[in-house]
Parts: sequence; structure tokens; C-alpha cells
Amino acid sequence: MKAPRGFHFTAGTAGLKASGTQDVAMAWSDTPLAWAATTTQNQLTAACVQRTRTRVASGDPVFGVVVNSGNANCATGPAGDAADERMAQAAAAATAVPTADGMLTASTGVIGVPLPVEDLVVPTLQKCGREASDDVSGFAQAILTTDLVTKTVEVTVPGGARMVGIAKGSGMIHPNMATMLAFVFTDAQVDQDDLRSIWPETVASTFNQVSVDGDMSPNDMAMVFASGHVPAALDDVKAALGEVAETLAKAIAADGEGAATRLDVHVTDAASVPEARAAARAVAGSSLVKTAVHGRDPNWGRVLSAVGQSGLAWDTRRLKVAVQGVTVFDGQPVPFHGMELATKMDRPVVTIEVSIGVGDADAWAWGCDLSEGYVRINADYTT
Amino acid sequence: MKAPRGFHFTAGTAGLKASGTQDVAMAWSDTPLAWAATTTQNQLTAACVQRTRTRVASGDPVFGVVVNSGNANCATGPAGDAADERMAQAAAAATAVPTADGMLTASTGVIGVPLPVEDLVVPTLQKCGREASDDVSGFAQAILTTDLVTKTVEVTVPGGARMVGIAKGSGMIHPNMATMLAFVFTDAQVDQDDLRSIWPETVASTFNQVSVDGDMSPNDMAMVFASGHVPAALDDVKAALGEVAETLAKAIAADGEGAATRLDVHVTDAASVPEARAAARAVAGSSLVKTAVHGRDPNWGRVLSAVGQSGLAWDTRRLKVAVQGVTVFDGQPVPFHGMELATKMDRPVVTIEVSIGVGDADAWAWGCDLSEGYVRINADYTT
Repeated sequence: MKAPRGFHFTAGTAGLKASGTQDVAMAWSDTPLAWAATTTQNQLTAACVQRTRTRVASGDPVFGVVVNSGNANCATGPAGDAADERMAQAAAAATAVPTADGMLTASTGVIGVPLPVEDLVVPTLQKCGREASDDVSGFAQAILTTDLVTKTVEVTVPGGARMVGIAKGSGMIHPNMATMLAFVFTDAQVDQDDLRSIWPETVASTFNQVSVDGDMSPNDMAMVFASGHVPAALDDVKAALGEVAETLAKAIAADGEGAATRLDVHVTDAASVPEARAAARAVAGSSLVKTAVHGRDPNWGRVLSAVGQSGLAWDTRRLKVAVQGVTVFDGQPVPFHGMELATKMDRPVVTIEVSIGVGDADAWAWGCDLSEGYVRINADYTT
Repeated sequence: MKAPRGFHFTAGTAGLKASGTQDVAMAWSDTPLAWAATTTQNQLTAACVQRTRTRVASGDPVFGVVVNSGNANCATGPAGDAADERMAQAAAAATAVPTADGMLTASTGVIGVPLPVEDLVVPTLQKCGREASDDVSGFAQAILTTDLVTKTVEVTVPGGARMVGIAKGSGMIHPNMATMLAFVFTDAQVDQDDLRSIWPETVASTFNQVSVDGDMSPNDMAMVFASGHVPAALDDVKAALGEVAETLAKAIAADGEGAATRLDVHVTDAASVPEARAAARAVAGSSLVKTAVHGRDPNWGRVLSAVGQSGLAWDTRRLKVAVQGVTVFDGQPVPFHGMELATKMDRPVVTIEVSIGVGDADAWAWGCDLSEGYVRINADYTT
């Protein structure tokens, strides 16, 4: 996939991952970028998250971002903060970005292990900084950890601007230490303040609706960068951002560890958007619903129970539940053909719709089934 | 196990369970009992929960409780409410309890299926009401669903009063539709108002600390009954209740579906008890921690991340984490012998201790490992 105008991409292999695959990546511009970022709500925060928050607070433009996978550089103390800063310095030097502050940082991988920045990361960045490309595929590959597939999406903004989204993450019950990272690059012309006002809402309705409770790892971040080469209407940029973020959110859910099925949950007719979002997350995040989806069991009782646990305003008599378009509860149980519906659930995506019947707010959430494979992956994943 | 003075127990087989095992049970007294009950916080509530709340609000004494397993009588509409009331009537008639209001009801099992009360439950209650016994074992067996073992405990209150606790439940990530039910019977003399002031706090620190987020099924209830035959000091009754409830809570966690290991989490030095409780629940309920325990992996990163998600006040530099008594994090990672600690984790109970280091509040939570067996049980469990 080709980079939007004004962006360079590169990736390299520092040796941070046991697999020996690419594990550092950079994306940058020769000119300052408008940008916005959201960071994890976890109290435990990696060095890169703390640094990103400082950059956000400064309000300064940036030129790009450097990412490493295989090591989260989290719970690594002051030495970890220094390593993170050193990674930014080396990335800026390697890409001719004027200051270290001009490069954001992101890390993903195992936590509590010192990042061998001087020995492994710095020389690799120096090398790959000379290998700039307008192809994003190396970047998309290098940021992965337990992901099975790269996650990229491209949309064209009316007027001709391009927008490319790249993500990694495993759409887990709780997102893995491996973290959710999302980066959106566009050559659209958009004011930084506008970008910052749009981005949190975009993230709230997409990335934060993946998996249980919107829980986040200590490293989770979602960033957007705009190089400003192509004029675009703000509403069009906003719509494109929503499309890119939703596509990436679904891709993360579908690539959940051990997952065979993506679970899409649509809650409608709720009293408020926050209630609809919480209810959708509760269903998508319920282990009982997730195992039922794995077993092709249209278990509406578990769906009702999950919604009920989210604490929203409801009246059982107004509730409707549909699985794969088949109504299974409408104020009371609705008879359905179990075998037929089980067959309909044997698809890559299972959709559960819940109408609360008390208002007009709606929200989506995305998850995946819970399989024996998930347990195996996470029981064997080492410290 | 012998019943406390003044209580009769019985159980029978109505045919509500596919297994054909005992599925109705009653416990009652010939004289009015002091009692207290807490019910699920789920918005979805079974008929028995709604009825119990009405009885609680009335403040009237009761004479006993009737329980059925195999059918939750939940999301069954007005017919379900009528079936629940009918079960109480039949139980009262079968035990010579003066009014239906004198019998509480509890149901556990599959939701959304009409309870065949007239055909199956009523005649069975009539029959087993004539088979009163002072042995609690039939009751303890009949209330089970997916449980592998009965859960009973007996303690003696200073002064000679006896207290017997009986529970069922599967200690799941989210408690199964199969529900957590707990019943405590004592012949201690205790005022109903005192019992009602003690019980919620006892439940908060024990049953509500089992599994994720204190999430509850639509049928969860915990009840205590006192026949008043033996004088006892209130503080002694309170201590005995705490011991009984904690023992049952641990038994429920240990019998988690597919579980091989009970997970005990002790959070200390937190700023407040609610924060300590939430943090302990977050650790005990984290799928990543649970799979790590299953894999004998002392993954303190997942522990920190779970604590961080509970949103409590902390400072990473003051945090300590110990697994099976071995400190693995003390402001920063502490080196430990991985193989040796993995061997120490190969026990029926794994204990994780987290010191927050900012106050003096503490709390326990109990969970279990997450295994492939859990997925199999819940993927195959039918609607």
C-alpha cells in the first residue's frame, strides 16, 4: 500500500523478537505534521505513553513516529524513560527530523524487560532511516506481535486526499500486553485543533469498542497524522477517519488470539450513547457469550444477562435480541429453529443485535469468540 | 452434616435436570426464623429474585426456603412469576408452614424455559415434604448444576450454637447462568435487624469477591436463617458468618468450570477498602492472569496491568507483587528463579499478593485458572 503524500516509511530488524522478524519501524514527514493521539486509560503506563502525553500537552507539531515491537518498555523505571527518549533521538537523527521531540514513540511486547536501545535499536534505526520508502507494508509488518495478519486500510477523501490506517492488536478479552496500536496517516489538509477535536470521539466509537470494557493495555495508543498536501473538507476528513478506524477495529477483533469468528454487536434504541456503548461492550466482552458463539449456540439468555450487567435502563418486556438476523427474544422467548440458526452462525462474522426499546441511541462493539486456542496462546505466553 | 437445631431438610427429584439427579430441596423450621438475603445486581432478575426482594422489603420473618435446580425460571414473564409463587405455596403446604409468604424461593439453571411447576415440582415437593431429615447432604446435592462437588461448611459459635453453610456455583469468569446460591443456617439467637445489618458486609467481602467484577447471574442470592435456639454474642455470630461465607466463597472459586487451580488474591496497603476490593477482583478476574496461572507463569506484568485497570490510586514505585510468597516486583522487576517459581505454582491454590503501598486497606478475591476445559464446557452448554 502506497503512503499518502509527504510520508516516508521504513522498517528494520533489531532483534527484539524471538522470531527474528522485523521489529522497528518509522513513519515521518520532511515537514511538520498536524496530529492527535489518545493513550491507554490503564494506570500502568509504558514510557512511550507517558512521553506521548507530554508531547500532546505541549501542543507542538511533530514530524513522525518510531515504533518497536517485542518489548513494551513498561514498568522499566527511569532507565526505561531514558531508553524511550534515546529511541526518539536516534529516530530523529536517522530521519533528519530537527529535534527528538519531533518524533513520537510507541512500544509493544513483553513488559518489565529493559529495552536494549543502545545495542540493538539505535544502530537499526540508523540503518533503516536510509531506506525510506513510500510503501507502508514493512511498517505494518514490523509493529505486529502475536497478530496473525497485518491490518491496513486505505480510503480516499473527497477532493483526492488519501488516508492510510495501520494497526496491530489481538482483540482479546483484555487486550494482550502485546497492545493495540493504531496509526492513521493522511495527506489531507486539516487543522491540528480540528484533528484533536475529532479524534477522541472517533476512538471512542471504534477502537474503544473492541473487546471487554474498553480495557486497555499499558501501551495502547491511537495516533493520527496529517501532512496537509491536499485540501479537504473537515466533514469529509471526519467521515474518512471514522471509516478507517472502524475497519481497523474490526480487523483487530477478527484477529483475536485463537479466534475463529468475529463477533459484531449492535445495541439500538438505548436511552443514551454511553449506555448503548457499555451494553454493546458487555455483550462483546462476555466470556459466556464468546464461548456460546464459539459453540454456534444462539444463547440469548447469556446476551440478556450481559446487557443486564452493564447497568443500563431497560424493561425486559421491550427488549429484542436477534442473532444473525433471526429474532430469538422479543419481550419473551421467540421460538426458532436451533439447527438452522446454528448453521447460520457458522460464518466468519456473527452479528448480535439488541434493541433496548427505551430510546434512540445506538452503538457497535466488536469482539471474537473464545476458543481453546486462546487459552493455549495465553497460558504459554512467557513473562 | 447435621442440621442446626430447629431446621428440617429434604430433597427430591422432579425431573428438571437431564441428568435425572435430585433437583428440588427444602429447608424449614417449625417456628419463624430471623433472616437476611442479598440478591443479584444484574438488571435481569429471575422470578425468585424479585419475590425475595418483596419478602425482604416486607420485613416479615420466614420459615424456610425452597430451591429448584435445572431451571432458572428467568425471563419467563408473568407465567414465571406465577410458577414461582406456586412453588412457594406447594412448599409451604408440604412443610406445614402457615403461609406461602413464609417460604422463600430460589431457582438455578437454564433461563427462558417455562418451569413445569404443576406437573413436576408440586408433586415432588408434596412427596419430599414427608421425608424431613436433620441431614443437610440431600439439600446440598440437589441445588447443584454444573458443580463437581457439594459445598458445605460447619462452624461452632462460642456458646455452642452451630452454623451450617451450603452453596452452589461455578466460580466462573462471569458466574454461569447456573448461578451462585448460598444458604447459611444457624441455631444461634440473633435479632433479625442485627442479621440484616451484618449480612450485606459479609457478602461484600466474600461472595462478591469471587470472580470478575462481582458480576452476578440473574439468579444469584445469598441468604441466612437463624432459628434462635442457642444464645450467642452478636460479635461471635458475625465472626462465624464471615468464616462460613469465606469458606464457601473459596469452595465456589475452586470448583470453577474447567478449573485446576484456585487463585487467591490479596491486595494490601490500598487507600481504601473499595479500591482494594476492586483491585483484587480485577486480578482474580483477568483472563490474562487466569491463563498465566493455568500455564504456571508468574507473569507479574499481567498482574500490574489488571490492577492498573481497576483505576485505584497508586504509584508504580511503591507497588510490590508476590506470587506464592516470592517477590517478583518491588517498585521494579525483582529477579527470580523462573523454573523454581513455576514449580511452586503447581499447587491446588496459587496466591498472588499485591501491596499498593499508599494506605492500610486490604481485601481478598478468589478466582480460578482459565483452562481449555472452561471453553469446552461453555461452548457446549445449550440454551
